[in-house]
Amino acid sequence: MTLPTGPVLALSGGVGGAKLCLGLDDQLPAGQLHIACNTGDDFEHLGLTICPDIDTVLYTLGGISNPQQGWGLDGETWQVLAALEQLGADSWFRLGDRDLATHLWRAGELARGTTLSAVTADLGKRLGVTAAVYPMSDDPVRTVVQTAAGDLPFQHYFVREQCRPPVHGFSFSGVGSAALQPALAALCASGALGGVIICPSNPFVSIDPMLQLDSFWQTLRESQVPVLAVAPIVAGQALKGPAAKMMAELNLPVTATGVAAHYARRYPGLIETFVVDHSDATLAPAIQKLGMEVEVTATIMRERADKQALATVCLELLCR
Amino acid sequence: MTLPTGPVLALSGGVGGAKLCLGLDDQLPAGQLHIACNTGDDFEHLGLTICPDIDTVLYTLGGISNPQQGWGLDGETWQVLAALEQLGADSWFRLGDRDLATHLWRAGELARGTTLSAVTADLGKRLGVTAAVYPMSDDPVRTVVQTAAGDLPFQHYFVREQCRPPVHGFSFSGVGSAALQPALAALCASGALGGVIICPSNPFVSIDPMLQLDSFWQTLRESQVPVLAVAPIVAGQALKGPAAKMMAELNLPVTATGVAAHYARRYPGLIETFVVDHSDATLAPAIQKLGMEVEVTATIMRERADKQALATVCLELLCR
Repeated sequence: MTLPTGPVLALSGGVGGAKLCLGLDDQLPAGQLHIACNTGDDFEHLGLTICPDIDTVLYTLGGISNPQQGWGLDGETWQVLAALEQLGADSWFRLGDRDLATHLWRAGELARGTTLSAVTADLGKRLGVTAAVYPMSDDPVRTVVQTAAGDLPFQHYFVREQCRPPVHGFSFSGVGSAALQPALAALCASGALGGVIICPSNPFVSIDPMLQLDSFWQTLRESQVPVLAVAPIVAGQALKGPAAKMMAELNLPVTATGVAAHYARRYPGLIETFVVDHSDATLAPAIQKLGMEVEVTATIMRERADKQALATVCLELLCR
Repeated sequence: MTLPTGPVLALSGGVGGAKLCLGLDDQLPAGQLHIACNTGDDFEHLGLTICPDIDTVLYTLGGISNPQQGWGLDGETWQVLAALEQLGADSWFRLGDRDLATHLWRAGELARGTTLSAVTADLGKRLGVTAAVYPMSDDPVRTVVQTAAGDLPFQHYFVREQCRPPVHGFSFSGVGSAALQPALAALCASGALGGVIICPSNPFVSIDPMLQLDSFWQTLRESQVPVLAVAPIVAGQALKGPAAKMMAELNLPVTATGVAAHYARRYPGLIETFVVDHSDATLAPAIQKLGMEVEVTATIMRERADKQALATVCLELLCR
């Protein structure tokens, strides 16, 4: 396997992104994998700051995630949630006991003025994660989903309303004044970056908040580092989450091409290569017309070997 | 039984105070019992505001407290604490899962700007408590224990250090600018108060912060409402907690008389009647010399009937 000479930066949302990150972590030498996590779906709940994408990535790389559902923790229990329900408190966000320990520890650190970056790095160490995991920013950015039922904070849309209200747009509260996480900015400025992988995460609520933050996408484009993206839509369906439903509601074609077109329109010239599944091989000409190379491979990551294989394809593409 | 015509106000710390409050709650008609709780040993931990005395009173009156230890909840579990320990987080404060639900719900309410008074009242309702339970203030007051090992926040002294460092004094951070809880102030100003009972709680860290707050003791004295106190020291020992150890370290006589003298010196003219246990009957003349009437009765509250009997004695004393 040919590996990029410099460090590799992955942009990740939750479950799908974390799977590819795990594959990358297996294939790259220690110290070479850097992961920027979306914080647009972070939220404040019961006095805690909850960071679902950061935690999914850390739990996955730490080997403690629930292997069935992809998020949350293996062997989780639900004592606190049951007591919250008895109190008549909001219990729509399913907080497990072990997961709560993470949120409480983070809340304690944040309360004493530690940055989210430092808390994330420390949590990674405590979980034995060797990859460098960063929030996209230390400043709060919060995704708001514009729906037929009104504007909803992301977790209200995603968990409480179970993605039912039809979507007509998104906004990212705070994105105008948030600074890119300093280590990410330094990585881009270093000239050493070997490549960027946009994980198969939701384009609208996982990737857009990151790329739109603090001119991050222009910074990446100007650095001339190779950038590839893996399609989160396979055979017209999202493997996880509401991406396909959102695309239909936004009147976008529910295909990998639809995702590529969204990226090409929003971030012209950024993505060199778009990776699609074998089942979408016929979409290649349409995606090439958007100015991207197309790589056709197996993108469905069920087993560890699937994650490693897709990671290998991505890493070799960055060396071309 | 003769009852005061107006509402009765109890000043309570944790376990001992909560026991007498439960007796008072059994004996008084609905709406007549008001309880001011010490918040000097509240503290911030893992991003939460923890209010041990308020919670002990609410759990006791709500019938859900742990009957063996007097604090915490019956049927408690410890999943989150185990996970915090795995993370390597501070785990010296023993947070149970059910108890955590209270703290989390409170944290959520406080984060949205609800006062501690309103949160406490709402929590009381959710737990089926009919007595009115108030924090002594909505402003933070934090007891600092001055020890041979340096100044320690109360819970660090009490739980983390298990009261080991010898004590030479106390201060109440914030007490100079904290306002008495508004409903308590209104109750004192109403002229309707039927009496005040200082529960058998720690004089230094449970009762002093309350009485020294916002001239509360002068307000009570000037209102000419009958005030009695129940000795928290019986036969030279504290039934619970470090009161006796503190008195020895402060070179005070470790007796009910020592407590009465402390109150008489700090709050001259406030307490009309001092209630001591049968085993301390011989102390009556010394306490009378401090300007207080003395009532000798059974003050050890093991069973529900003990609590009710002591409550009855106190309520009848307020009618004399």
